[in-house]
Amino acid sequence: MSKITVGLIGYGYWGPNLLRNYMELETAHPKWVCDVRPDRLLTAVTRYPSLLTTTRVEDVIGDPEVDAVLIATPISSHYTLAMQALRAGKHVFVEKPLATSVDECDEMCAAAAERDLVLMVGHTFVYSPPVRTVKRILESGELGDIYFVTCSRVNLGLHQRDVSVVWDLAPHDLAILEYWLGETPISVQAMGRSCINNGIPDVAFLNVRYASGIVAELQVSWLSPVKLRRTILVGSRKMLMYDDTESVEKVKIFDQGVDYKDPETFGEFQLSYRTGDIFTPRVESTEPLSLEAAHFIDCVATGARPISDGAAGRSVVAALEAAQRSLDSNVRISDERRGILYGGHTETLAEVSRP
Amino acid sequence: MSKITVGLIGYGYWGPNLLRNYMELETAHPKWVCDVRPDRLLTAVTRYPSLLTTTRVEDVIGDPEVDAVLIATPISSHYTLAMQALRAGKHVFVEKPLATSVDECDEMCAAAAERDLVLMVGHTFVYSPPVRTVKRILESGELGDIYFVTCSRVNLGLHQRDVSVVWDLAPHDLAILEYWLGETPISVQAMGRSCINNGIPDVAFLNVRYASGIVAELQVSWLSPVKLRRTILVGSRKMLMYDDTESVEKVKIFDQGVDYKDPETFGEFQLSYRTGDIFTPRVESTEPLSLEAAHFIDCVATGARPISDGAAGRSVVAALEAAQRSLDSNVRISDERRGILYGGHTETLAEVSRP
Amino acid sequence: MSKITVGLIGYGYWGPNLLRNYMELETAHPKWVCDVRPDRLLTAVTRYPSLLTTTRVEDVIGDPEVDAVLIATPISSHYTLAMQALRAGKHVFVEKPLATSVDECDEMCAAAAERDLVLMVGHTFVYSPPVRTVKRILESGELGDIYFVTCSRVNLGLHQRDVSVVWDLAPHDLAILEYWLGETPISVQAMGRSCINNGIPDVAFLNVRYASGIVAELQVSWLSPVKLRRTILVGSRKMLMYDDTESVEKVKIFDQGVDYKDPETFGEFQLSYRTGDIFTPRVESTEPLSLEAAHFIDCVATGARPISDGAAGRSVVAALEAAQRSLDSNVRISDERRGILYGGHTETLAEVSRP
Amino acid sequence: MSKITVGLIGYGYWGPNLLRNYMELETAHPKWVCDVRPDRLLTAVTRYPSLLTTTRVEDVIGDPEVDAVLIATPISSHYTLAMQALRAGKHVFVEKPLATSVDECDEMCAAAAERDLVLMVGHTFVYSPPVRTVKRILESGELGDIYFVTCSRVNLGLHQRDVSVVWDLAPHDLAILEYWLGETPISVQAMGRSCINNGIPDVAFLNVRYASGIVAELQVSWLSPVKLRRTILVGSRKMLMYDDTESVEKVKIFDQGVDYKDPETFGEFQLSYRTGDIFTPRVESTEPLSLEAAHFIDCVATGARPISDGAAGRSVVAALEAAQRSLDSNVRISDERRGILYGGHTETLAEVSRP
Repeated sequence: MSKITVGLIGYGYWGPNLLRNYMELETAHPKWVCDVRPDRLLTAVTRYPSLLTTTRVEDVIGDPEVDAVLIATPISSHYTLAMQALRAGKHVFVEKPLATSVDECDEMCAAAAERDLVLMVGHTFVYSPPVRTVKRILESGELGDIYFVTCSRVNLGLHQRDVSVVWDLAPHDLAILEYWLGETPISVQAMGRSCINNGIPDVAFLNVRYASGIVAELQVSWLSPVKLRRTILVGSRKMLMYDDTESVEKVKIFDQGVDYKDPETFGEFQLSYRTGDIFTPRVESTEPLSLEAAHFIDCVATGARPISDGAAGRSVVAALEAAQRSLDSNVRISDERRGILYGGHTETLAEVSRP
Repeated sequence: MSKITVGLIGYGYWGPNLLRNYMELETAHPKWVCDVRPDRLLTAVTRYPSLLTTTRVEDVIGDPEVDAVLIATPISSHYTLAMQALRAGKHVFVEKPLATSVDECDEMCAAAAERDLVLMVGHTFVYSPPVRTVKRILESGELGDIYFVTCSRVNLGLHQRDVSVVWDLAPHDLAILEYWLGETPISVQAMGRSCINNGIPDVAFLNVRYASGIVAELQVSWLSPVKLRRTILVGSRKMLMYDDTESVEKVKIFDQGVDYKDPETFGEFQLSYRTGDIFTPRVESTEPLSLEAAHFIDCVATGARPISDGAAGRSVVAALEAAQRSLDSNVRISDERRGILYGGHTETLAEVSRP
Repeated sequence: MSKITVGLIGYGYWGPNLLRNYMELETAHPKWVCDVRPDRLLTAVTRYPSLLTTTRVEDVIGDPEVDAVLIATPISSHYTLAMQALRAGKHVFVEKPLATSVDECDEMCAAAAERDLVLMVGHTFVYSPPVRTVKRILESGELGDIYFVTCSRVNLGLHQRDVSVVWDLAPHDLAILEYWLGETPISVQAMGRSCINNGIPDVAFLNVRYASGIVAELQVSWLSPVKLRRTILVGSRKMLMYDDTESVEKVKIFDQGVDYKDPETFGEFQLSYRTGDIFTPRVESTEPLSLEAAHFIDCVATGARPISDGAAGRSVVAALEAAQRSLDSNVRISDERRGILYGGHTETLAEVSRP
Repeated sequence: MSKITVGLIGYGYWGPNLLRNYMELETAHPKWVCDVRPDRLLTAVTRYPSLLTTTRVEDVIGDPEVDAVLIATPISSHYTLAMQALRAGKHVFVEKPLATSVDECDEMCAAAAERDLVLMVGHTFVYSPPVRTVKRILESGELGDIYFVTCSRVNLGLHQRDVSVVWDLAPHDLAILEYWLGETPISVQAMGRSCINNGIPDVAFLNVRYASGIVAELQVSWLSPVKLRRTILVGSRKMLMYDDTESVEKVKIFDQGVDYKDPETFGEFQLSYRTGDIFTPRVESTEPLSLEAAHFIDCVATGARPISDGAAGRSVVAALEAAQRSLDSNVRISDERRGILYGGHTETLAEVSRP
């Protein structure tokens, strides 16, 4: 197989990670890096002297040798850049979230479909070994019926963010949940707060409901001094805990057991922590981004549909829009009284049928 | 000081724990145990042969030697029993939640105030050493401004419950938060689900907002095979984690640190877990219930106002009522389509000024 | 079955724990408590008003109603008291270690055998649920051939000890290992130090070898501010970790897995923590002492041989004597030069064949 | 400052890690890689096309441009290669352990001293941020007098090893302890076992004593399916735990606290885990090898004496020799009876005064 030639647009926070992984692929040939800031281009070319650099996207998109374009720019430019590339006949990879609205997503999906081009969104966790391990466990039915899910995603560091924590971090969990559960949300409730920058929520709580009845709760924030990741799926037979910060035990499965009795003394009370066995499967430690990159190149080469295709990107954006409306409705209620507060009515979503 | 004579009404799940702790107090003299089931009375008197037992509450409330009545019956009877006891001039301790509605709570508070009697609610965690340690830390200002709080309370075991998980478990966290923050919620959003018994939610997510801007998220459930307790307070200077299931490190304080940099490689990415020092204060391991019992007897003896007084009980019930309305509004929207699902509009609460 | 009447000699540190457990047994009738200190007898009788108390052992041993005597006195008196009781025809339970020398143990075993009396030593951990769970796992062959064992036993608190940490704490691990491995040590190497009280080692390291080739390493100390317990058995197929301070995961089994590769980057290096799955069986949380007490009473009632019989007590004492000689030999070498230091030559033990 | 030109001899397991780190240094210019296997040289030059490669050490050592030689070959060749390089006037870095005997070390040290050349040994952990953090804490006196130390070092993977686990893993802990304590062992006791390859111990326990009275216990093994690293220093005031496998809390300090009481119930017993506060300082996550490489280059450039100089390498080898003799003496005692077993008499070392 000849190599797929790619051009990268955007070399800010995430671009270098993308580039490093595409450089290591035997199936890809990164040719261009494009960024508005020449100093970043200099960094890129110092690391990888064979690259061509430019500040003009036209150089990348207009190069007939380029098969596919990788877009790692701010969210607001995803739609415009992706449409340009698709119209030029390029396969397109876009960082998450796919775009700023469902309408934009729909146009992008249509443009790719018309031309038979691959459109993939960077829902990286869908390619991570522990998330895939959980998917296999769910498919085996080992957990029984899923009752509910909770997700904590609390990150370090607050850098010049141009979007709220909902649009920055919630896509990860929404994408993971859609991948695991095979369904999209039907309603979303959100409450948030802007603690540092007036107007941009940096902590938010989303309550999400799926058509099957499953309810999920997502916490997202940038404000903590410790990275916290803990996703819990409670099923009728077993419970699963997935913690990406755990070095040894990323995925743990807790059996329901049978013989729980209410404790009678304080000692017993303190010691009654669980009812069954625990199993911790081994999980590969491959970098998710490297698997994601290989999958994109493979889809471009074979025409296969990506796991995180345009439709997956669209349904995440639909849930984000609903969460945003819920936050906004709440602001209207309460901001005259006590400043910027977020969290409001429950938003109902149209159900989407996947192709 | 002469001993305070108490009578216990209700010897089901929690009553034996109350009795054991009052028996060990040097300041209390448990005289009566009352329950509708004679077999339970037999259990009580086998353990403590000096007790009088009865199936009639009148025997307890009508005994002129009895100074105070402890009520550990189902929630629906709290109001009636407490009012009977207060009218008979007895000090009253009621298990949480105080009653089934704010109106009932108001009447109970008024009845106690008129007669200068102690009315205390069993917000047990307010007396637990780790919760008190956190209170002292909050008062010291060490954490800075509080941005947000999250609380997981996932218990084992699903026994003939007559109330939803919201009324059973959320009172703990609502009481703890009021104790810590010194303020009551101004709005509540809730989503839940009834997984086992149709009609009684056994998992719920509550998003709560306080007048100061602080937002809190509460997860409550009975469905897990593992007891999970994790409360996180994120402040502008430090973060605090309180986990009641931890044997050695119940309370941990994480410093913000200063020098966070975005990671550049997968290894760095995986290793960037925190930015500052961690401190874990030693916490006493005294049983909270024993401290609560001693506090009630002390308030009866001295006329002091309990930390978990009627007003504290009332504000927890107000938040529960709001959560219930939020759950109910959602049912109205969605139940024609897909059965019982919970979670609805945001409820706004009147602000309460504490005396 | 009529109850077995017991008398307890020694009500210091451990006696109250013994008494509490025998009081709760339906098969035992604790009649006497004997101690040299009248204040301790007062404490006992306040808790359990039905007890008879005395400062004279003759009252207990001479009482024809007494079936069995429990000895919880300092080690130096075990031999004399046990021989008195056995000669009076009483079954005897002795706290660990059984006596101060192998010779004493041999006499005690002979005295019990002659009269067909039960002689049991308080190797409590042999009755603890996690230790029994490990025994079952070992018997199943799941771990493969055992390569080596390590045991950390670091306790809190340094109270007027009359014996070294070797005689105080090492009996636990030596008894557990004999119970698990079904064999006794053939050689012992020891090094220790007296950090607080000149002349009484308060930390020691024992290297122990068994006839099958298995080597074990025991750390014992009273000097730490944290209780540490970690026993690791490494086998040809799996590794097992037993940590008695863990509330949820006391016993964990680690599979060898297959595909270990040396890491090539620092990130990989840091992340290469294990090679296979982990399984954590549920373990009962029953108090070991209560199971031990029930076992002793059952052996007295039925004539069965206790798991921790006189022979088990003897082989632990043999290993302690060897460790002591190793410590002593080292003192002779080095103490002229730099004060009291412990640790010396390897002691070889005679192999013991169990009946 | 002009760059220091280096040549690397040995590109097997560890060589690639050395090379990667020296390539990233701005102060070093790696010119040569030498290995007996051409396939390894091909790997090196594919990664770093600017390198010269050779199978003859003379090419490296004879190159007048080369300032310093890095030796990462099997232990048996360290002495010969280092002497060749020193005689040719090159500064020398040797992987640990420095050589196979104290005599070899002495010659190497003398050869370097005569010619005023830097001789450094790769005691990498001495450069690791957590080990340096512990050094600073020890120097502050915060822990009080050190009573004892225990070190677990259980690694994954058993690859064609040419030396025993004692010579492979124990150098790490012996070097760390000498760095921390500022003194060398005065006696060593060792017991080991060859579980996989007859004749080469793959698990060993070393008991080590220092002149100040401090005793240390080292466990080393290749046999576990989980990497275990736990070093504990118990002092008169505080205890410190260092665990290199911990992602968040590599170094923890436990205060002694004051008020330990023996527990009276099983619940209390289970809950009495510690007596004081815990503090976990933040530790940098820089790769130790990169700090080690920078230190070597800096010493070459400035003539400074390395932290892990020849004398440090010599005293580690002296302790290894003593451990080996202890193992060997034991073999003589026991191997006629039951095959290969290791562990024997205590070896006394001459005290070394550092320059």
